[in-house]
Parts: sequence; structure tokens; C-alpha cells
Amino acid sequence: MDQKLASLRSQIDACDTELVAILAKRNKITAQVGQIKRDSGKPVYIPEREIELLEARRSQAQAQGVSGDLVEDILRRMMRESYQNQQSELACVAPELSPAVIIGGSGVMGQLFAKQLRRSGIEVRILDKAQYESKDEILAGAKLVLVSVPINKVEAIVESLPKLDDDCLLVDITSVKEKPIKAMMTCHSGPVLGLHPMFGPDIEHWVKQTIVVCRGRGDTKTDSLLAQLTIWGTQLVEMDAKKHDEAMQIVQVMRHLTTFVYGQFLAKQTHSLKEIKSCSSPIYQLELMMVGRLFAQSPGLYSDIMLAQFDNVESLLEDYKDIYEQTLVKLKNGDKAGLIAGFSDAKSYFSDSAESFLKQSRALLNKANDSKVLD
Amino acid sequence: MDQKLASLRSQIDACDTELVAILAKRNKITAQVGQIKRDSGKPVYIPEREIELLEARRSQAQAQGVSGDLVEDILRRMMRESYQNQQSELACVAPELSPAVIIGGSGVMGQLFAKQLRRSGIEVRILDKAQYESKDEILAGAKLVLVSVPINKVEAIVESLPKLDDDCLLVDITSVKEKPIKAMMTCHSGPVLGLHPMFGPDIEHWVKQTIVVCRGRGDTKTDSLLAQLTIWGTQLVEMDAKKHDEAMQIVQVMRHLTTFVYGQFLAKQTHSLKEIKSCSSPIYQLELMMVGRLFAQSPGLYSDIMLAQFDNVESLLEDYKDIYEQTLVKLKNGDKAGLIAGFSDAKSYFSDSAESFLKQSRALLNKANDSKVLD
Repeated sequence: MDQKLASLRSQIDACDTELVAILAKRNKITAQVGQIKRDSGKPVYIPEREIELLEARRSQAQAQGVSGDLVEDILRRMMRESYQNQQSELACVAPELSPAVIIGGSGVMGQLFAKQLRRSGIEVRILDKAQYESKDEILAGAKLVLVSVPINKVEAIVESLPKLDDDCLLVDITSVKEKPIKAMMTCHSGPVLGLHPMFGPDIEHWVKQTIVVCRGRGDTKTDSLLAQLTIWGTQLVEMDAKKHDEAMQIVQVMRHLTTFVYGQFLAKQTHSLKEIKSCSSPIYQLELMMVGRLFAQSPGLYSDIMLAQFDNVESLLEDYKDIYEQTLVKLKNGDKAGLIAGFSDAKSYFSDSAESFLKQSRALLNKANDSKVLD
Repeated sequence: MDQKLASLRSQIDACDTELVAILAKRNKITAQVGQIKRDSGKPVYIPEREIELLEARRSQAQAQGVSGDLVEDILRRMMRESYQNQQSELACVAPELSPAVIIGGSGVMGQLFAKQLRRSGIEVRILDKAQYESKDEILAGAKLVLVSVPINKVEAIVESLPKLDDDCLLVDITSVKEKPIKAMMTCHSGPVLGLHPMFGPDIEHWVKQTIVVCRGRGDTKTDSLLAQLTIWGTQLVEMDAKKHDEAMQIVQVMRHLTTFVYGQFLAKQTHSLKEIKSCSSPIYQLELMMVGRLFAQSPGLYSDIMLAQFDNVESLLEDYKDIYEQTLVKLKNGDKAGLIAGFSDAKSYFSDSAESFLKQSRALLNKANDSKVLD
């Protein structure tokens, strides 16, 4: 028996060794695809190709009695690698944005943009504290100035800029948009654009990452930058600045706050995290992970973020508290009809998405289970 | 250019076609592994083998310039398939539990256990409403009786049981443990065990799934059932019933409540879900998913669950509300030191886990990005 098992395991190892060889071969091919896309000005991400490729392999798989979902999961993971491979040099469709200056270019997000612009052949100059004395020189002739500084410094830094060329595109990437755009419009007579990248500095590639676009003062340079972002594979979502800022408050402030409160609540319990985790189904473990990850940050930095966001949100906070208290009353009174009414409100808000959220989260939970290592 | 791109794409398709063939071959081998494990009484999940396999392929990958993480992610996904393959017939290490009766065996969890016991060669009889008139006959000679009924019916059903054989193991799998175990101990003089499976009926396989074990009255039959659960690959966590019930309240009741409140809060906003999603970074999208998935359920069923859980939790609810209000006061007063103190409490509660949560959630966010399909 043991011998037969050992023999089957060698056969599995042989399969997996073939797999590694295929991955190595695929890497080499996708790197060449990247070069062709760069030379021919094509975007990294071409949705039709992705869909075609997946469909073809799914039907092949089914014909051989292999699960289509298994093949799709593996291919999507391989595509992530392929997109990463393809971004070492990127097509440039906006040469008129060169030279670009990144204010705050030593910060993590500034560096991320600098790297990506350079990969597209655009000259990038960094302007951070260390270079501040030479700022006039660095900014001279700039065709794109991208402001990547902490949220509470944007306006002061924009106001302190020397006069930029009229054909220079001035852009900021902070997480609020109304005030920075207004400040940029006041100080600069040329094109102005507000961007909010919905990702952090640790992304593996730019493909399918969302960037919210709030227009300030448009011209062809704005279109050039947006075209360049599309070449990188990002998903652009145009939105009014005020609408964006309100949505951000609902999303960020409230989630920060409830997560922060929940973390403190757990800390007050007599049960250890280990005990709590043992009594958590995968979905609660995922929620616990989402709460716990917040506390990997620096307390001081995080408190600053919360304080900075806590402007004009009193009514949101009261709304939340009211609903919490109403729900408690319903629970205390055994008011099932009231609970159903509240549930139904939320259900219609999420409408069709609730089902797809359920499906997506199942896929993530399976992935989380795959990664477990037990003793 | 286009021709060269087309040629490279054919090469990629050829690689991926090889991949599908490898998966088909691997399926056949792992099915044979399953049979050998069944015949030799080996567990489906053997941690050392998993670790060795991954390490060997990671080093092979690195030698060929392929990312170790890429190979590990793909292999873990393939192992999921392999575990699924291996569970069609399972080793039996507890023949003395046959015949088994599942009370509530027509429900989804009851069916899940029935299927798994039968796969291990144990005779399973179903006792549900339809069979209630013949219950004495069905229960006669049972060596395992597993109660899988709604939480508010456990005690009544246990009390209504006819006298079971003294060597019959009586088990329940509801999400509270203290009261059901007490009821089982009162009605039955033989071995009693409380289990709480930390998974739902839609799992793809049993490997690495957690089951909390609360002991009632032990004997060798208890050990047999636990050994059988280990053969299936589950992770057993022993815990005192009272401790378990308290932890469940902290985890389930509070997360249910805050998720429920947050969903209603969102429904009250003037922003559509689409707008909110556009302004959400991947981590907030994941949180949104976790909230939204709740509302895929039936309002009536969900309200019943909340009402059933709302017993003896007033002090938890007050704790949460107090912390929420204290946090609001700190924010209003710009009390940075107070925020830092609260943050630090939670940080030390999560201690080292915060970093690993951050890492794990990053892996899940990458997976979520892989699955995106943009227009």
C-alpha cells in the first residue's frame, strides 16, 4: 500500500514539475507580448482576449472531465503574473506630458506613479522636501505636475507653487477632490484634473485597478493622461467631485469608525483572539481579518487620519447611531415585523448585488481555506 | 506587429492547453490516491505531504525564474480539487458507530453529515418530520444519534427521544452548546458530545474545516467519532461549552448586528451602490461584499436568527454602544491621545495577528482583482 502511494505521489510530483516548466515558458512568451504591446501602443489589458482565452480553455477542460472553475481560477492567477511581466516597459501615448514633476515624489504613492510614468518613457522629476530649494528649476518647463502629498497639505502646497506654464496639466491624487481641485483651479490657469486612485502602493500591477476621475479644467492634455492610464489597464470612473467626497465619507469614515469601535470592543472581552477565532466560521474569520488588519497600522498615523476625516460627518454618525438604537429596540421588543422592514430596505439597496457578493465571497473563502496550514 | 502578437498568443494557448491536460492527468492520479487512503485507513489531509510538495515545487520554480508564490497559489488551488476528488469514498475508522441516525437528516447540514458518514461506509438512517411516526423503529439499535435541527428545537426534540442504547453516542451540531449538552446528558445515560461545525452546507470538501468540540459524557465511542472527523481532514478545537457560547455571542451576535445596522445605514444614503462601489478601494469593496452578502438571505429567516440570538447579550450591546459614543466624543474634541489609547488597546489584543491578517487579506484582495471583468 505504502509503496503504491509513494508511486502515485511521484506521478503527482511529475505533473507538478511539468506545471512549473509551463509557467517558465509562459513567462517568456508574455514578456515578449509586453514588448509588442509597448511598440505598437497597445494597452496591457485587453478584455476580449481575456474572455476568449478563458472560454476556450474552459470548454477544453470540460471535454476532458476537468472543472471549468478550476481552470479559470488557475488561468486568472497566471494572468496576474502575465500583467506584472508586461509592465516593465509600457507604451507611451502621451509624450506631450514629458517632463513630468511629482510633488511628494519620495512618498510611496508618488514613487508608484513615478515608476509607472518612467516605464512609459516619460521623463519624471521628483520634487520633495529634499529638493524644495530647487523647486523653480525642477518645475521649469514641466508639462505634467502631479501632487502626491498628505491630504492636509494639498492646498498649502498648491498655493505655494510658482506660476506653471499654461499648457502644463496640474493633477492631484488625494482622497478628497472638491477642495484640491478648487485650489488648483485658483492657482493655475491651465488644465486641471483630480484623480483618486482606489489602490495603495502595494499593488502587484495596475490592470483593473480603479481610478476615480474628477474633471477640473479640461484640454487635450487631460485626454492624454487619461489615455495613458487606460494603456496601463486601469478602470476610469468619472464622477462629480462633490458626489465623490460624500461617497468617500460614507465609505471610509463610517467603515473606519465601526471597525475601530469593533476592535476596541473585542479588546474589552475576556476571550482571547485565539478563542474567538476558533469559534468563527470562515466568514467571521474573514471579518475578523478585516478588523484586525487595521491595527497593524501606527496608532498616531491612524488617529490623524480619523481626525482629518472627521469634518462635516456629524449627521452620518447620528444616522448610524439612530439605526443602531432602533434595531436594539426592535430586538428587545421581539418586533419581527420591524426587523423584516429594516432588512428589506437594505435588501433592495443591494438588490442583485447581494447574490453576486455571496458568490464572490464564497470564492474568497475557498481561497482562504486553501491557504490554511494546520498542525 | 499584429501577426507577431497573434503568433505569441497561439504559443500561450498551447501552454494553457498543456495545463488542461496536466490537470486531467492529475485528477486521475489523485482519485487513485483517494482509494488507497480509504483502503489503508489514512486521512485525506496529511499536512507534511502538503508542506513537502509545496517546498519542492517552490525551489524548482525559483531555479527557473518563476515566482514561488505563483506556483504555491496554483498548487493550493489544485489541492482543493484533489481533496474534493479524494472524498468520494473515505476510510472508516469508526465502524462501531454504525448504524447512525440523523435527526433532521433532511436539512442541509443533516444531509452533509449523512453523505460524509455514508462515504465512510457507515449505515445512515434519516429521521425527519416525514419519518417521525416510525421513530422508535429507526432509532432501534442506533450506535450514533446526531441531532441536526434548528437551534430553538434542540431541547424539545432531545427530550422527546425514546430511550437509546447505553452504548449509543448522542451528538448535536447546533451553534450553542451548553443547553443542548445539558439536555442530552439528562435524557441519555450513555456517551454525549457537542459539536459545532464552523462551516455551512456549501463547502467543497471537509479538509481544514474547523469543528469545535465540547465534551459531555465521554467513552470510546466519542474517541471513535473524533478519529473519524480527523480522517475527513477536519481541524478539531476542544473548548468548554460555556466559553464557546460566550465567544459565539461576541462573534456572531455582534457581527450580525453591526452588519445589519450598516446595511440599513447605506440604504438610507442618497448615493447608489454603484457610486459607493466606485469610491471603494479593494478593501472597502471587500467589506461592502461582506455586508451585502447578508442581504441575500430571507428577511424572515434572518430576523428569526437575530431574535433567537438576542438572549443575555444586553451587556455586550451596551459595551459596544459605550465605545461608539466614547469614540465620537474623542473625535469631536480632537482628543488624539484618547484615540491612540483606544487604538493601542485593540492593537495589543490583535498583537502579532494584525500583520498576518494584513498579509492574508492582501492575498485575498489580489484574488478579487484577478476575478474582475471590466467592460
